[in-house]
Amino acid sequence: MQMVEAILAGQRLALARLLTLIENDAPEGWAMLDALYPRTGQAHLIGVTGAPGVGKSSLVNQIARALRHPQDGEPPQTVAIVAVDPTSPFSGGALLGDRVRMRDLSGDPGVFIRSMASRGALGGLAPTTAAVVQVLDAAGFKVILIETVGAGQAEVEIARLAHTTIVVEAPGGGDDIQAIKAGLLEIADLLVINKADRPGADLTERALRSMLELGYPRGHHHPEEWAVATTQPKETWVPPILRTVATEGKGIPEVVRALRAHADYLRASSQWQAREQARLKDILDHMLQAALLARWQAGLPHGFYQEVVQRLLRRELSPHQALEVLLNQMPIPSAENSRLVP
Amino acid sequence: MQMVEAILAGQRLALARLLTLIENDAPEGWAMLDALYPRTGQAHLIGVTGAPGVGKSSLVNQIARALRHPQDGEPPQTVAIVAVDPTSPFSGGALLGDRVRMRDLSGDPGVFIRSMASRGALGGLAPTTAAVVQVLDAAGFKVILIETVGAGQAEVEIARLAHTTIVVEAPGGGDDIQAIKAGLLEIADLLVINKADRPGADLTERALRSMLELGYPRGHHHPEEWAVATTQPKETWVPPILRTVATEGKGIPEVVRALRAHADYLRASSQWQAREQARLKDILDHMLQAALLARWQAGLPHGFYQEVVQRLLRRELSPHQALEVLLNQMPIPSAENSRLVP
Repeated sequence: MQMVEAILAGQRLALARLLTLIENDAPEGWAMLDALYPRTGQAHLIGVTGAPGVGKSSLVNQIARALRHPQDGEPPQTVAIVAVDPTSPFSGGALLGDRVRMRDLSGDPGVFIRSMASRGALGGLAPTTAAVVQVLDAAGFKVILIETVGAGQAEVEIARLAHTTIVVEAPGGGDDIQAIKAGLLEIADLLVINKADRPGADLTERALRSMLELGYPRGHHHPEEWAVATTQPKETWVPPILRTVATEGKGIPEVVRALRAHADYLRASSQWQAREQARLKDILDHMLQAALLARWQAGLPHGFYQEVVQRLLRRELSPHQALEVLLNQMPIPSAENSRLVP
Repeated sequence: MQMVEAILAGQRLALARLLTLIENDAPEGWAMLDALYPRTGQAHLIGVTGAPGVGKSSLVNQIARALRHPQDGEPPQTVAIVAVDPTSPFSGGALLGDRVRMRDLSGDPGVFIRSMASRGALGGLAPTTAAVVQVLDAAGFKVILIETVGAGQAEVEIARLAHTTIVVEAPGGGDDIQAIKAGLLEIADLLVINKADRPGADLTERALRSMLELGYPRGHHHPEEWAVATTQPKETWVPPILRTVATEGKGIPEVVRALRAHADYLRASSQWQAREQARLKDILDHMLQAALLARWQAGLPHGFYQEVVQRLLRRELSPHQALEVLLNQMPIPSAENSRLVP
């Protein structure tokens, strides 16, 4: 566990190595994560999502900078950035973003940047990202920014790893407002209109505001997912809509203030714990499902599963009937009996 | 099974009722689907996806029309349209699209339209959509168009229900090309640039073409998911890029021809079967995982799972350790023993 101690002592190379082990699903990586796990739970996890081209990387960059060099008397915070690009190899976005970031943030020991440009080995991008975030949390970074493209299968899952989710928009054609945004609005705690110096920012804000009103008709805050909260929040949080021009640093202090306000809200309303609980249960349940399936398959008679799948493909069993047969390890009905309709 | 016979006899009301039962996860719906299942496997399943605002509904509408009234001597085909909107209640897209479609296609007994604006009860939108598609297939519709917004968690899964996936784009800012498209490109069999009379269509086409070249560097066709094919295809399919102005019917015959060509390609290369197999296995595995988890949880000592989750939340167990404890129903390690790092 020398490497664990090196990580806790702040050695970046050891940290980078462990993250690689985790991404490769190496058993020694798991063992080290187990050892580090009691140290987790300190960081504010912030998801940043939105369509490509809205300027997520610049925004993340500027938020990190503002947290490192606060202008309002708050103490500087250590920051880790996890850039997840589930769309590679088609997109070079993650790498490009990194190069820009490197120029701005490199040399600062209080910032650690990691990009994940490939699907992890743990059965999806979300579990791997969760593990990477746990390591960074244990390593002592107080804010972890998780940046992911808001399009694709994994983005909502990844955003749910966070305490606070920022959905980034940019002014665009009126048509596009219904766009990506619909699915993402449900998970937004902060809405940021970046590139707000472009024409159409007012229109975008109006559209977002009216969609928010549709979505929070009676002051409700969160979709059902968070209804696991053991205590009802004392007041509700309505996602603020903020404008930024990240490339010029405009509007960033307001975003940082809103992030702090949301963390305070979560803590005061016990939502912090509720989200943590929902998140950890979710991770555990995903791991459990995969493990139970693997174990159950190992216990089946040789060729049984394949035989049922063949029957399914030959339309002799419906998916529902195939499930029954598999679960109960029933003798496979003959083709004649299962064809209820002649 | 009177309703099953009514459906096979082409009675639309019975069909609509069964679809409602399926969407509500009613046991009698399942039984009827079991009875109908041997009749499935005849339809060409076509997924249509893309960002909102690109004109998916108009395109689907026009494809349905062209299939009903072919100009090239091919026989007319019966068509079902399943419009899936995973983003409701924030968006009224599905309903709006339906109203437009109704005006164009209503009164034609060879067309059946169903919109699904809510998450199904079967553990997600994809399994419910799969079941709805199976019913329509059994009911005898030869082409089933599955339209879904290319943004959100379920879209890729839903597109994978199809034999052929059309990804729809529209000309837009250069920035946006990296957009949604990256994730969707991987699943595209046909790329359609709709609203091609707008400025920027050339740029969009060039961008798509260069992304395709990146993605298919050595003539490869499909991402790993389809590597389950038992036989290698004899030749590869490179997604054609087609231009349409759906509202005016422009370019539609070419899209229909490309759809037929893709179906021929799939059949000739045995990819048709391979995709069917992958799809059905996927549906079955999802149902299995959910069922195994439920069954396993029912067999646990009362409060055991909750206790492990509490330990997880208190950071006394890592997710990985919690998994081990749960799977092996080991005595829960005391907090002292599990804290490997002091």
